[in-house]
Amino acid sequence: MKATRPQSSLAAALVGTLAFTTANARAADPLPSWNDGKAKQSILDFVAKVTKSGSPDFVPVAERIATFDNDGCLWAEQPMYFQFFFALDRVKALAPQHPEWKEQEPFASLLKGDVKGALAGGEGAMLEIVMATHAGMTTEEFDAIVKDWVATAKHPTTRRPYTEMVYQPMLELLAYLRDNGFKTFIVSGGGIDFMRPWTEPVYGIPPEQVIGSSIKTKFDLRYGKPVLVRLPELNFIDDKAGKPVGIHQHIGRRPIAAFGNSDGDLQMLQWTAAGNGPRFCLLVHHTDAEREWAYDRESSIGRLDTALDEAAQRRWTVVDMKEDWKCVFAFAQP
Amino acid sequence: MKATRPQSSLAAALVGTLAFTTANARAADPLPSWNDGKAKQSILDFVAKVTKSGSPDFVPVAERIATFDNDGCLWAEQPMYFQFFFALDRVKALAPQHPEWKEQEPFASLLKGDVKGALAGGEGAMLEIVMATHAGMTTEEFDAIVKDWVATAKHPTTRRPYTEMVYQPMLELLAYLRDNGFKTFIVSGGGIDFMRPWTEPVYGIPPEQVIGSSIKTKFDLRYGKPVLVRLPELNFIDDKAGKPVGIHQHIGRRPIAAFGNSDGDLQMLQWTAAGNGPRFCLLVHHTDAEREWAYDRESSIGRLDTALDEAAQRRWTVVDMKEDWKCVFAFAQP
Repeated sequence: MKATRPQSSLAAALVGTLAFTTANARAADPLPSWNDGKAKQSILDFVAKVTKSGSPDFVPVAERIATFDNDGCLWAEQPMYFQFFFALDRVKALAPQHPEWKEQEPFASLLKGDVKGALAGGEGAMLEIVMATHAGMTTEEFDAIVKDWVATAKHPTTRRPYTEMVYQPMLELLAYLRDNGFKTFIVSGGGIDFMRPWTEPVYGIPPEQVIGSSIKTKFDLRYGKPVLVRLPELNFIDDKAGKPVGIHQHIGRRPIAAFGNSDGDLQMLQWTAAGNGPRFCLLVHHTDAEREWAYDRESSIGRLDTALDEAAQRRWTVVDMKEDWKCVFAFAQP
Repeated sequence: MKATRPQSSLAAALVGTLAFTTANARAADPLPSWNDGKAKQSILDFVAKVTKSGSPDFVPVAERIATFDNDGCLWAEQPMYFQFFFALDRVKALAPQHPEWKEQEPFASLLKGDVKGALAGGEGAMLEIVMATHAGMTTEEFDAIVKDWVATAKHPTTRRPYTEMVYQPMLELLAYLRDNGFKTFIVSGGGIDFMRPWTEPVYGIPPEQVIGSSIKTKFDLRYGKPVLVRLPELNFIDDKAGKPVGIHQHIGRRPIAAFGNSDGDLQMLQWTAAGNGPRFCLLVHHTDAEREWAYDRESSIGRLDTALDEAAQRRWTVVDMKEDWKCVFAFAQP
């Protein structure tokens, strides 16, 4: 794993050449990190079909809505959802202001590095961790906290910034869809305000096209200055049956294409598939223990079980990461 | 008031010429229905400033977010909010299925034409009317109901379809902002699913850029077909202090320009004005009893009182409809 940042003008010139070559390659093959095969072909066929004017499958640009799960679909989610690492780092950062946490679960276990013990409290414990780290500040303060974390935190096994743990083939897919008039949205169980500070530079997806779970906020005037304060109260869980609800609430139009990787995405894919006209549903199957991780039916994170069965029955596209992707992360180009 | 639909090929040709002339006029003056004056000039100055690349006030396209109230700002709201006329029409349409309404308030009074009596029950009565007419069906069914109503219902005094009761100067303003790279959003106290079926053809604003009040929905499988069922339970009130909350929830980015007409828009304007860099806030003041309606501080609908004072103090643009607008509705061109 080599650093790719140019250190000299020679390097800059080389990168320039590379960029030119890449642009040319993209014109020839819009999905260069995808191996030729059924999965890649199904994407190309769908896009060709809905963009061919005059064809019975043509879809007007305004209706070309594509929704993407985030964790395990656009970026990795192992060994834990990255937002949970964020929460852990925040607990450590906030601990000096909370001496009581030394005696108080789930914080006491967390601070001793015992994540399993901390999570023994189940959903209640998880909620306490989320509220202690995600609420109690203004939206602008939280935005700055997330940006700072994203700029400095490193993944525990790859030691890469989390925003480099994004799937190169999916970045190409996002760009390819947008080049063909699609509006790309994220529809994730993750926190909406945890994603928005970085999805535009990393995925090219602006904040108004990010849908996620949220806590409530409250408008307040502080010394005459309007602020939105983040409250320790759940607003919406954008997972499973919540995903079509979130899509309806934010977009108000049914997607024609949906991309996921776990049972949490099943209802989003069902909702997408049930519309009239051409539809495209895809699941990323994590099959590559060497370049990424291999997990599915038994995993507590990103479990893919019922949705995998339904994909087979309904002939949705299933991406076999090991077979279908030439490379997984840009920092590990073959 | 003459019909403007072409009835013959001659008429079509004339309309073609007119369209050409209008396009030319728009190039010369992007806001032809606005009289020259302070209000118009303040809009032109703001747009020139934020779009001039290299200027200290330049705003990148991605951040050119403009939010518009709907009732009384983009379309009329007298003698009652139009969504309330929709609810009344729905009560009448549904009455045969609800024989009990003959004896049950607020429906009994409504069905006798006694709106005042029906609303004597205050917010509780209003909520009952909303839930009886807006919940209990799927989102697709509700969409069809709204589209049908919009296509057939007529305003009680002008006898025009409600979607013709939109302000021509504001349509020009929306188009002008979009021509200059702005993304235009609606942020209304009205129902999000009541607006979305028609905002795209009428205002050029797609469903994903409409923010409004909502009831909860629930994902369900009906005979294997996924549906979203509208529940008789409030989800969000997008009014007053709710507007910045709704903006944050849906857009995740602070607008640089906001347009309203009542005290219900005050917090949206405050939130917009409080951002860094150039900001633009505008209130439409209903001063034209002849061409529209004249009302402000004492009105129960669209009250403009505190916000009018704050606009004066903060030098926000206040549009005097009578003085600043050459025409109000396209069907009543001078």
